[in-house]
Amino acid sequence: MKRTAFFISDGTGITAETLGHSLLSQFEAIRFHKITLPYIDTVEKARLTVEKINAACEADGEPAIVLDTIVDEDVSAELAKSNGFKIDVFSTFLKPLERELKTHSSYTVGKSHAIIEMNRYKDRIDSVNFALDNDDGARTQQYDRADIILVGVSRCGKTPTCLYMALQFGVRAANYPLTEEDLENPKMPDVLQKYRHKLYGLTIDPFQLAAIRHERRPNSRYSSLDQCDFEVRTVERLFQQQDLPFINTTNFSIEEISTRIIAAKDLIRRVN
Amino acid sequence: MKRTAFFISDGTGITAETLGHSLLSQFEAIRFHKITLPYIDTVEKARLTVEKINAACEADGEPAIVLDTIVDEDVSAELAKSNGFKIDVFSTFLKPLERELKTHSSYTVGKSHAIIEMNRYKDRIDSVNFALDNDDGARTQQYDRADIILVGVSRCGKTPTCLYMALQFGVRAANYPLTEEDLENPKMPDVLQKYRHKLYGLTIDPFQLAAIRHERRPNSRYSSLDQCDFEVRTVERLFQQQDLPFINTTNFSIEEISTRIIAAKDLIRRVN
Repeated sequence: MKRTAFFISDGTGITAETLGHSLLSQFEAIRFHKITLPYIDTVEKARLTVEKINAACEADGEPAIVLDTIVDEDVSAELAKSNGFKIDVFSTFLKPLERELKTHSSYTVGKSHAIIEMNRYKDRIDSVNFALDNDDGARTQQYDRADIILVGVSRCGKTPTCLYMALQFGVRAANYPLTEEDLENPKMPDVLQKYRHKLYGLTIDPFQLAAIRHERRPNSRYSSLDQCDFEVRTVERLFQQQDLPFINTTNFSIEEISTRIIAAKDLIRRVN
Repeated sequence: MKRTAFFISDGTGITAETLGHSLLSQFEAIRFHKITLPYIDTVEKARLTVEKINAACEADGEPAIVLDTIVDEDVSAELAKSNGFKIDVFSTFLKPLERELKTHSSYTVGKSHAIIEMNRYKDRIDSVNFALDNDDGARTQQYDRADIILVGVSRCGKTPTCLYMALQFGVRAANYPLTEEDLENPKMPDVLQKYRHKLYGLTIDPFQLAAIRHERRPNSRYSSLDQCDFEVRTVERLFQQQDLPFINTTNFSIEEISTRIIAAKDLIRRVN
């Protein structure tokens, strides 16, 4: 069974898309063809969107799901003319919120949003630069400024996690790779000693690690299952000996790894 | 006027937080103290959360706003005991969706979600690695695999935009800096000629550029307003001469820059 789902917004579409994915993931029996249409901010664009929706309804033989976060009433009214099944997020929640907050919402497309975004911008860029500058143990003299320092073997997911924490939450995350040298005579590198309270370990299933490394350096010792297995076992023992909190990334998404670490270490989100 | 707002989830909290920010940004008159509580997945955790909410209600002298995306009915019922004003996203939308789709939702915490996430994982990591490998013109031999190649002067926002497109949408984005050499006798670098269809320009207000560069290299020629002004004017003229699409990043968030480029170039999102 297949249904088309449209996520429509007068802005980036990220809110509509994020909520849409969450809601539709609760219906496992149905395969959704998902289409995000951002920046639908004029009646004319809405009219063209209605044509697309109606074409999908006809092709599927069922009404398309239409989830939108459009604020402008004229644009929203035009969109309501489609044959799709419309979920109107803002009108559903803004009216009760207005009553509770005893004030009118601005209903101004992206207005206050833009202000918030600009405040967020600098912290996020700073954090991204911090993550890039402090990737892979490149520098350690900035660890005083770090909110968190991820440690783990090569290719266990440190870099994407640092970048995600920076972009999504403005968290300044450094990462330090534990190399063979650190693992042969297992100990925490000297440079990390004074930052114990900032350290968080990542580990990973050895089979998955071998597969990931294999893509970088096929048929090398580095990517052999023996080597991966040795490194993972050693690093996990080291985390335990040092009483270091750690997370196994194997079955988690980047969002989950990041938000679990932030929650566990009670980190301040600079972007909010 | 100040109100506390809680975004509560049994998972990462990203859906609750994203929707919450969008809704509350419509109320400019009110200053919200926003608190995200992820992984509230047991009745006991919900009970502790209710205590936090009630404490905030008492401190504010007004009910806190409580927006949650909890699926489990017992956990949700416990949370409903708070004195906050509860916006229950899932129960509001899942019931009508069940009727429309003529099927029950799984109501299984994070179950199908986890499956989706794992499929997304590899594409995202690949795209992040692609962005890092192809940052700042480091390599050009992989441009055949690029979905998009951002061009612009140093520090105009290319790298964070590439990383965001990779993490959020699985888009493979490279970037190439236009240096003084390219701009003194303005022309598009040879290596980019055969990828014209993949190029997208970024530009920026010269004052903002000078401020950003100043943080990296204070009081240098590189960060002087004269130099920034020269580079920006030249690069914009080059974009126009070459009939290259471009966006001024000055007043846009990273989300907006990314989604506008993806929409304008009709790029395929690998993560969906």
